[in-house]
Amino acid sequence: MNGINIAYIGGGSRGWAWGLMSDLALEPALCGTVRLYDIDMEAARENAIIGNRLAEREDVVSSWRYEVSASLEKALAGADFVVISILPGSLETMAVDVHTPERYGIFQAVGDTVGPGGAMRAFRTIPLYIEIAEAIRDHAPDAWVINYTNPMSVCTRTLYRVFPGIKAIGNCHEVFGTQKLLARALEEVKGVQDVTREEIRVNVLGINHFTWITRAAWRDIDLFPVYEAFVEKHHAVGYESEQTGNWMNDFFSSANRVKFDLFRRYGVIAAAGDRHLAEFCPNRWYLKDAETVRAWKFSLTPVAWRLENQKERLEKGRRLAAGLEPFALQETGEEGVRQMKALLGLGDLVTNVNLPNRGQIPSLPMGAIVETNALFTRDSVTPIQSGTLPLPVLSMVERHIRNQEGIVEATFTRDRHLAFQTFLNDPLVDLDLPEAEACFRAMDQGYFD
Amino acid sequence: MNGINIAYIGGGSRGWAWGLMSDLALEPALCGTVRLYDIDMEAARENAIIGNRLAEREDVVSSWRYEVSASLEKALAGADFVVISILPGSLETMAVDVHTPERYGIFQAVGDTVGPGGAMRAFRTIPLYIEIAEAIRDHAPDAWVINYTNPMSVCTRTLYRVFPGIKAIGNCHEVFGTQKLLARALEEVKGVQDVTREEIRVNVLGINHFTWITRAAWRDIDLFPVYEAFVEKHHAVGYESEQTGNWMNDFFSSANRVKFDLFRRYGVIAAAGDRHLAEFCPNRWYLKDAETVRAWKFSLTPVAWRLENQKERLEKGRRLAAGLEPFALQETGEEGVRQMKALLGLGDLVTNVNLPNRGQIPSLPMGAIVETNALFTRDSVTPIQSGTLPLPVLSMVERHIRNQEGIVEATFTRDRHLAFQTFLNDPLVDLDLPEAEACFRAMDQGYFD
Amino acid sequence: MNGINIAYIGGGSRGWAWGLMSDLALEPALCGTVRLYDIDMEAARENAIIGNRLAEREDVVSSWRYEVSASLEKALAGADFVVISILPGSLETMAVDVHTPERYGIFQAVGDTVGPGGAMRAFRTIPLYIEIAEAIRDHAPDAWVINYTNPMSVCTRTLYRVFPGIKAIGNCHEVFGTQKLLARALEEVKGVQDVTREEIRVNVLGINHFTWITRAAWRDIDLFPVYEAFVEKHHAVGYESEQTGNWMNDFFSSANRVKFDLFRRYGVIAAAGDRHLAEFCPNRWYLKDAETVRAWKFSLTPVAWRLENQKERLEKGRRLAAGLEPFALQETGEEGVRQMKALLGLGDLVTNVNLPNRGQIPSLPMGAIVETNALFTRDSVTPIQSGTLPLPVLSMVERHIRNQEGIVEATFTRDRHLAFQTFLNDPLVDLDLPEAEACFRAMDQGYFD
Amino acid sequence: MNGINIAYIGGGSRGWAWGLMSDLALEPALCGTVRLYDIDMEAARENAIIGNRLAEREDVVSSWRYEVSASLEKALAGADFVVISILPGSLETMAVDVHTPERYGIFQAVGDTVGPGGAMRAFRTIPLYIEIAEAIRDHAPDAWVINYTNPMSVCTRTLYRVFPGIKAIGNCHEVFGTQKLLARALEEVKGVQDVTREEIRVNVLGINHFTWITRAAWRDIDLFPVYEAFVEKHHAVGYESEQTGNWMNDFFSSANRVKFDLFRRYGVIAAAGDRHLAEFCPNRWYLKDAETVRAWKFSLTPVAWRLENQKERLEKGRRLAAGLEPFALQETGEEGVRQMKALLGLGDLVTNVNLPNRGQIPSLPMGAIVETNALFTRDSVTPIQSGTLPLPVLSMVERHIRNQEGIVEATFTRDRHLAFQTFLNDPLVDLDLPEAEACFRAMDQGYFD
Ligand SMILES: [Mg+2]
Ligand SMILES: [Mg+2]
Ligand SMILES: [Mg+2]
Ligand SMILES: [Mg+2]
Repeated sequence: MNGINIAYIGGGSRGWAWGLMSDLALEPALCGTVRLYDIDMEAARENAIIGNRLAEREDVVSSWRYEVSASLEKALAGADFVVISILPGSLETMAVDVHTPERYGIFQAVGDTVGPGGAMRAFRTIPLYIEIAEAIRDHAPDAWVINYTNPMSVCTRTLYRVFPGIKAIGNCHEVFGTQKLLARALEEVKGVQDVTREEIRVNVLGINHFTWITRAAWRDIDLFPVYEAFVEKHHAVGYESEQTGNWMNDFFSSANRVKFDLFRRYGVIAAAGDRHLAEFCPNRWYLKDAETVRAWKFSLTPVAWRLENQKERLEKGRRLAAGLEPFALQETGEEGVRQMKALLGLGDLVTNVNLPNRGQIPSLPMGAIVETNALFTRDSVTPIQSGTLPLPVLSMVERHIRNQEGIVEATFTRDRHLAFQTFLNDPLVDLDLPEAEACFRAMDQGYFD
Repeated sequence: MNGINIAYIGGGSRGWAWGLMSDLALEPALCGTVRLYDIDMEAARENAIIGNRLAEREDVVSSWRYEVSASLEKALAGADFVVISILPGSLETMAVDVHTPERYGIFQAVGDTVGPGGAMRAFRTIPLYIEIAEAIRDHAPDAWVINYTNPMSVCTRTLYRVFPGIKAIGNCHEVFGTQKLLARALEEVKGVQDVTREEIRVNVLGINHFTWITRAAWRDIDLFPVYEAFVEKHHAVGYESEQTGNWMNDFFSSANRVKFDLFRRYGVIAAAGDRHLAEFCPNRWYLKDAETVRAWKFSLTPVAWRLENQKERLEKGRRLAAGLEPFALQETGEEGVRQMKALLGLGDLVTNVNLPNRGQIPSLPMGAIVETNALFTRDSVTPIQSGTLPLPVLSMVERHIRNQEGIVEATFTRDRHLAFQTFLNDPLVDLDLPEAEACFRAMDQGYFD
Repeated sequence: MNGINIAYIGGGSRGWAWGLMSDLALEPALCGTVRLYDIDMEAARENAIIGNRLAEREDVVSSWRYEVSASLEKALAGADFVVISILPGSLETMAVDVHTPERYGIFQAVGDTVGPGGAMRAFRTIPLYIEIAEAIRDHAPDAWVINYTNPMSVCTRTLYRVFPGIKAIGNCHEVFGTQKLLARALEEVKGVQDVTREEIRVNVLGINHFTWITRAAWRDIDLFPVYEAFVEKHHAVGYESEQTGNWMNDFFSSANRVKFDLFRRYGVIAAAGDRHLAEFCPNRWYLKDAETVRAWKFSLTPVAWRLENQKERLEKGRRLAAGLEPFALQETGEEGVRQMKALLGLGDLVTNVNLPNRGQIPSLPMGAIVETNALFTRDSVTPIQSGTLPLPVLSMVERHIRNQEGIVEATFTRDRHLAFQTFLNDPLVDLDLPEAEACFRAMDQGYFD
Repeated sequence: MNGINIAYIGGGSRGWAWGLMSDLALEPALCGTVRLYDIDMEAARENAIIGNRLAEREDVVSSWRYEVSASLEKALAGADFVVISILPGSLETMAVDVHTPERYGIFQAVGDTVGPGGAMRAFRTIPLYIEIAEAIRDHAPDAWVINYTNPMSVCTRTLYRVFPGIKAIGNCHEVFGTQKLLARALEEVKGVQDVTREEIRVNVLGINHFTWITRAAWRDIDLFPVYEAFVEKHHAVGYESEQTGNWMNDFFSSANRVKFDLFRRYGVIAAAGDRHLAEFCPNRWYLKDAETVRAWKFSLTPVAWRLENQKERLEKGRRLAAGLEPFALQETGEEGVRQMKALLGLGDLVTNVNLPNRGQIPSLPMGAIVETNALFTRDSVTPIQSGTLPLPVLSMVERHIRNQEGIVEATFTRDRHLAFQTFLNDPLVDLDLPEAEACFRAMDQGYFD
């Protein structure tokens, strides 16, 4: 299919943009144009050069043109798809999100989703998403919008709040990692080899980065007893696959001990990385202090590392643009391009995405952004009824949903008081009132002035 | 996969039982045992002979043994699947359902779903379904139950009311006929040939026999403008495909004028045969009198014909059992066996089924039996969120759902007054109170004595 | 309490305005200003003169000043209460609503609520209510708004759709009449005399003019068996109280045969006049033809009578303004002024009003305008959970709610097609498609051009 | 009204039974019989003697006979009202609830509602309530049931789960205390004296002991600004009324600092005593350690005190029965008798009670036991729509509702694992997994063996 128009918003951080280029280059069914828009226009320009270079290569099986758009509006006009992957603020700002709370005894492994860091990141991202949503409403109301930016739930919620008619989904690969882990368990427990993650059927429900699997199967094999055996064997010491990932998840390894512990508690499979899962639970469980974190065998990613890594990526970008380094084509494992194909009518797909709750999880508040499986078919994404969660898990999920609602409401209405009370309701914020106030104040980069 | 146990309840009317035999015989992936139970044990015995004869044939690609069970309990014990397809009462009783209302000016094309005939059929079927549901709860609580008996919605509702943990679905092929019609439209309007009905993607929602399609596509082609063109061309005169069906639908042809008219009214595609659709609408629209019916080009199936047809089928049964006539193997187009495969983990399937509303149609009452697409995967059927219907259609559907609720409640509680008031709320029952009372009394075969 | 500001929108038809004047004049607890606004400014001016004349009288126990406002905005500015009672269009227009459908065999007793007449009246009233709601949002967002205009449900729905934060209620006295009837039954069956309608406790639920009572008591006496005995005695011949009413309901008598019949059908008490009730039911039940209406002993109010009556009222107005006729002070039995007192904190009140469904009738769609009891206290109206209705009644109510939703949606979106399909879904519109189209066209006074 | 039959279940702890006797003795409108049933039959016998002694007194304005019933069934047969006020287990058992968690750093002020103590109390009370509910279903299905036992929410939930048709309410006087505090604020801020708590209108919503007031008024005065001024003045040091209460609340004083703090956080009025409120909040806020508790100026009631107090009450009981001490007649301020009057048709009443959520708080799960205002009228209690709560409060309430659901479910299904996970989800249980497990084990008096 020719003539597909994709608007790519963001991409200055390079990685996600290159991933999309790679996936498009390897997909023979689609050709067209990608319009790049980033507030760092230089970044967009460099990405366009890198993208257009691919046209010459023989191992590229499709034809895509990359253009830089001078404005959001221009990028959006005529788009069939809008991909959003922005870095809200700078990594320096993110350092405040992640490390300032450490002064108050709150440790965060990622700091981009929930917890004090997630809240602050939300406060500065939502205003950007309001602008983006208004622009989509006005310039590309029929486009399918694929969001990759975190915090996923509040970003997607903002899109729908501004423009209820938007056709937006939120994508995240965390569940895929759990599918891979289930394939490992299948191999170890049952001796079945070479099963791909796509073959692992899972019933997914929850919220992004705190997503759960309540049924899993490979062909006719129920994977719950398989996983149970696997967990019983490994939970004490942990399990680390020898597998290495792409840039997106490589150095972020864990021993899955949090995931195993949650399975032993609740009997359902937590489907995100341990670093994310830990942040959704009460402070004391997995993140009490550095020693606790070490015992659970995951790491707290320092923003200093991200800065270093960013520098490397920028340098790599310059080399790629200058033709000094070849662009490495490889499938990212992301599903954005597969989803586009399904939405264009080129084959159905069932996968997990983030969408407003219209009844797919009837026990959670309607309108909350939830993550479940959905059926993708031509111009249509329909979520699948996913049942419910064990009560204590449901309760934890609900609490985060209310916090997301509070964060969005507070940002829309500029209500600092609500923002702070919501901040205080986060399970990681195990502080008394004056401490919490001090922490909030130290972290607030002008969001509620 | 070997050792599958199927309990088949009913089958005395032969047709559906032979269809299942045929589909099982042609499915290489499954082997096992079918236990036949019917209150007419002679019928079950004859069916077992016919089924077991297939084992000798070369064109049969699987191995199934057919046994007669002396009781419902014995049929159910150890079942993986329970298929229910019973004739509630006799055709003589059905003649009262269909033809007695004609004395009061109410004409019915089928008389087995809604209208006065559907109500009476429900009153005598629900008690049987209470027994079946109790037996499944006690003897096969983990089995998947596939219901084919009409009235579909109230039968399935009864199963869930008696045994909320039942894993039951209701199957009907009416939507498939509409998919075929869409393939015809695609051929005629766009010149695309040889598209099978399975390739036509549809978003299905509503209640059985009054089901609607709100999105349809073939690959990347939106079928709504295609169907619109087709309807505009044919609605005045009607459209009849030259295609002939199997025993189940052959002589029940129509010119689709009701279906076309409903599309022109509401902009969504009614996905059942005209004979069914007409019965859900106000009496005056399509069934006012014989002349009106003729003008809309469908027929009122007389029960006399069913009696004749039954006689032929019984004779054919005797010939088949005696080996005097070869059993004609052919796929029925029903999806029961495909669904079993998916439930066993042998490949996913998305298709439409009848299930309690858990949010798949949030604008309709929770717990009502609704028909939507669902994802079938290993040991799991999860309905797909199907959006909503145009308001006037929603209103008509709601009215029937309330009537179904009333019919079930009245039968469970032996409440003749509620039964009558519900009867009176049917759109076909355009009678004043004394006429309606007389009609009800004339039709009541001891249901509320 | 002094300084109360009331904005009175409408009043050109005199009756309701005079009623309010009378009730205010007789209420010692409140004093203030009424600002009158009507598109017929002469009418407003005359009403102001009449109102201000009251100040001189000795039997008036409060002090109110009446002013004419030149615009809606001016009337609203600073209002504590907004009373709306407009005549949408003229009585000549209403004659089309009521009498044109007679050419198609549809008879209407009132023609202002549902049926073809109610639909058309809605189509022309909703745009006026959009304007009023916008003006309230902009000029009196904190005022309590009391609506008297019909069609009540769609008018109130429009107010909330335009301005979700509005503090609006819809008032109707029909339930009061049923309370009076219950007092009569109590007298006749139990010999208890002189019970006022306020002493009769009722649980009210449904929609305006199709409201139902599911529990009724006087002190410790359950009135359901009392009413049942009363109905059994009178239903065949009917019951007419010798009581005469004020201008609002005097000549609109009935023998309550419809009300009695509905009780015998459903076991719950229909709480509106027969003329209204009949219009909510299938055409054939009570309104099939003139003879049927006569048999049920209610009358079809001709608009010619209303024109005559209007003329008399206008003449009376002139006499009142000129001081040629004394203004007759008497309590109307309306509750607007009592409600104002309660909202001002001068004593609680439980009474029935029309409000958006926030769960007071959980089995009906959220957001629909429903009529139930509510507790009035200082600056607060909180509806009371009212349980549910018998299924067939619920179904009829739901159908009208969907029609109201369709009417409002069609008017907001200028969707003639939806308007017509909704019209067709009315129980009184027992027409085939071409007849219905002709009827709609004949009635449409430019609403969907 | 004569011949009223009251079944009183429990009463062995004397206080509540004597309170009811006092209230009945002072209510001239009701006469009848109270049947006392307690597993400590000696206690019931003593209470009967005390109650029957009242008949001789001149200051008693009604006539009540007290009888001892040998069984629950006999007490219930023919009852118009059932009052339940039991002590589940002994005070020695309660000592484990309250004081064992102190070894794990968890301090509880009451320990009978939530927290580890509330959970354990629930585990042993629910089985008793299952029995009581079954007996009511079988022997007094039409009686009105008034529950006073804690934990209120789970006891009432159990009644409805066993017997959905039960007419049960849960009563608690905590809100009354807050009404009294509002009267004090009114006096201090506005100089209005001698306002009774019944005159203070409040909109109540939440769950028992964590109930909130979102609107409050005295006549035309909005009490929110009044309370705000009061709180601003007193929050730092606290406010203690000089008023002393009856046996039920006397020694349980606080300085309202928790209540004031919650108002400053959320802008709505917490309507329970500080000792209860603190237990619903995160451990660290008000109950971190003894010093924190002292700073917030409330006390942790030691069970040793309860034991001492119990001893005194038993001795007093002996004196009262022996006629050695006169029974002090005084109204308790409880509303049970007033509610009975209203339910008998002797005057309406609006007050707060605990009932299953049928939509009175639409943002909380349906079926949860919630506390809101309700209208009491003849044979009917209808809750009032109460709006919603600020998001962070809603979130805290939801968490407790999920815990209550988990506690009830775990007790019904004997699911120790769910019981423990629910225990762990309590905000007071700020423990890691091994500590929590040890604490649970130490507290479990055989509930899950
Ligand atoms: Mg992610
Ligand atoms: Mg069918
Ligand atoms: Mg009215
Ligand atoms: Mg209490």
